[in-house]
Amino acid sequence: METEKTEPSSTDEGSSRIEGRNAVIEAFRSGRTIDRLYILSDTHDGAIMTIKREAAKHGTQIRYVDRARLDAMSETGSHQGVIADAAVYAYAEMEDLFSLAEKKGEDPFFLLLDNIEDPHNLGAIIRTANTVGAHGVIIPKDRAVGLTAVVAKASAGALNYTPVVKVTNMAVTIEQLKKRGMWFVCADMDGTPMTKLSLTGPLGLVIGAEGSGVSRLVKEKCDMTASIPMRGEIDSLNASVAAGVLAYEVLRQRLEKAGLS
Amino acid sequence: METEKTEPSSTDEGSSRIEGRNAVIEAFRSGRTIDRLYILSDTHDGAIMTIKREAAKHGTQIRYVDRARLDAMSETGSHQGVIADAAVYAYAEMEDLFSLAEKKGEDPFFLLLDNIEDPHNLGAIIRTANTVGAHGVIIPKDRAVGLTAVVAKASAGALNYTPVVKVTNMAVTIEQLKKRGMWFVCADMDGTPMTKLSLTGPLGLVIGAEGSGVSRLVKEKCDMTASIPMRGEIDSLNASVAAGVLAYEVLRQRLEKAGLS
Repeated sequence: METEKTEPSSTDEGSSRIEGRNAVIEAFRSGRTIDRLYILSDTHDGAIMTIKREAAKHGTQIRYVDRARLDAMSETGSHQGVIADAAVYAYAEMEDLFSLAEKKGEDPFFLLLDNIEDPHNLGAIIRTANTVGAHGVIIPKDRAVGLTAVVAKASAGALNYTPVVKVTNMAVTIEQLKKRGMWFVCADMDGTPMTKLSLTGPLGLVIGAEGSGVSRLVKEKCDMTASIPMRGEIDSLNASVAAGVLAYEVLRQRLEKAGLS
Repeated sequence: METEKTEPSSTDEGSSRIEGRNAVIEAFRSGRTIDRLYILSDTHDGAIMTIKREAAKHGTQIRYVDRARLDAMSETGSHQGVIADAAVYAYAEMEDLFSLAEKKGEDPFFLLLDNIEDPHNLGAIIRTANTVGAHGVIIPKDRAVGLTAVVAKASAGALNYTPVVKVTNMAVTIEQLKKRGMWFVCADMDGTPMTKLSLTGPLGLVIGAEGSGVSRLVKEKCDMTASIPMRGEIDSLNASVAAGVLAYEVLRQRLEKAGLS
């Protein structure tokens, strides 16, 4: 059981909470990544407008909430109509992932997570990405969990080594990465058995949210769909287990191709 | 996030709590598995002695606690000096696992969990055991988590299909199963890379607790040790991910041998 928190944290998910107008403006300007931004409904004064401009510039989604909600969230008691949750860890840029692959002299191998919402699963998958030798993890900007302290702890330290990129639109990102020579395989229970696919070369492995799977738009962009054999009554795995099984099949094929297995 | 509870439950881990002397005696006599038994220190009257005898007969460990502790645990307010946590699901017998393998016409394939303590991990591993076509899961009686509602939920229904056996001594159990023709492979980071081992035939896959791994006594009973390739800075996986990766390597080899891959 990993329940204790090792990071300074003021929210349940362990991101770092910032309250008040100047503090939030300063956080944006210092380059910190704001995962969530809460603003009091119907406020339009100068400082709030500045915060909204910074949010737009950084692609941060704003949630408009009422005073009772902000008061309940506030720990300092002086939120001044704005509360931000900053990521505990910094996000990487896409080029960092390619650089890492190049430095290791390997074909790029990325894990793309389509809306994994459980921070324990996200952390476990970042951990797996590291052990399997992937060069980075790509997560969507909206709707998914960010790099909170819970994620960092579940990653068992992997967040210090494996870069994580946040992108606005997963389907568009896949299109862009395809132009750079990458192939994409998405996990899908109706796909081809994973051992029958060729999973070497520059590859992006796309894992969907538990329950809903990979979204249709993202699936359509993928070159292949891979299924994990199901030999019992249950037809799906925990998202982090599925990611591990698929990622290790990719590694197995790569090691075999390199004569290392 | 799977946080809601679907089973009637009165404890954090979701087992079913039984309070009071007659209720506890009745639970034992009706064959329910008691995972934990709390008795008020220094009580020796007839009913308590009966409960102690039932506990000894069923191999249930007794924890002696003071009145303040029992009062704090009690929900009914009338524990009468005894509280029991009963398993939500019934345990199977070892023969059930062999019967299942025989019914399917397959070599027995069991997962043995050496002190997995996180109920989410235990549930996820039972789920994996089902999808990988294993015939059952073996867990130790003491120190490990039981079949609580949290485990049942994390198993995503697999507990309804995959039998789980509780044994007193894992090392002794391995000895007994070896006499029935089974081979045992334990997960260990210093072991032989899993793809280089032959993992077909009647097999028990032994997974250790996260952190401490498989205990020395159990490891010594195993015929092989299998490692998962580690290609990054982190040298271990989440226990349920490791179990999934190893179990699927076993399945891959079995399907290949059967000409099904």
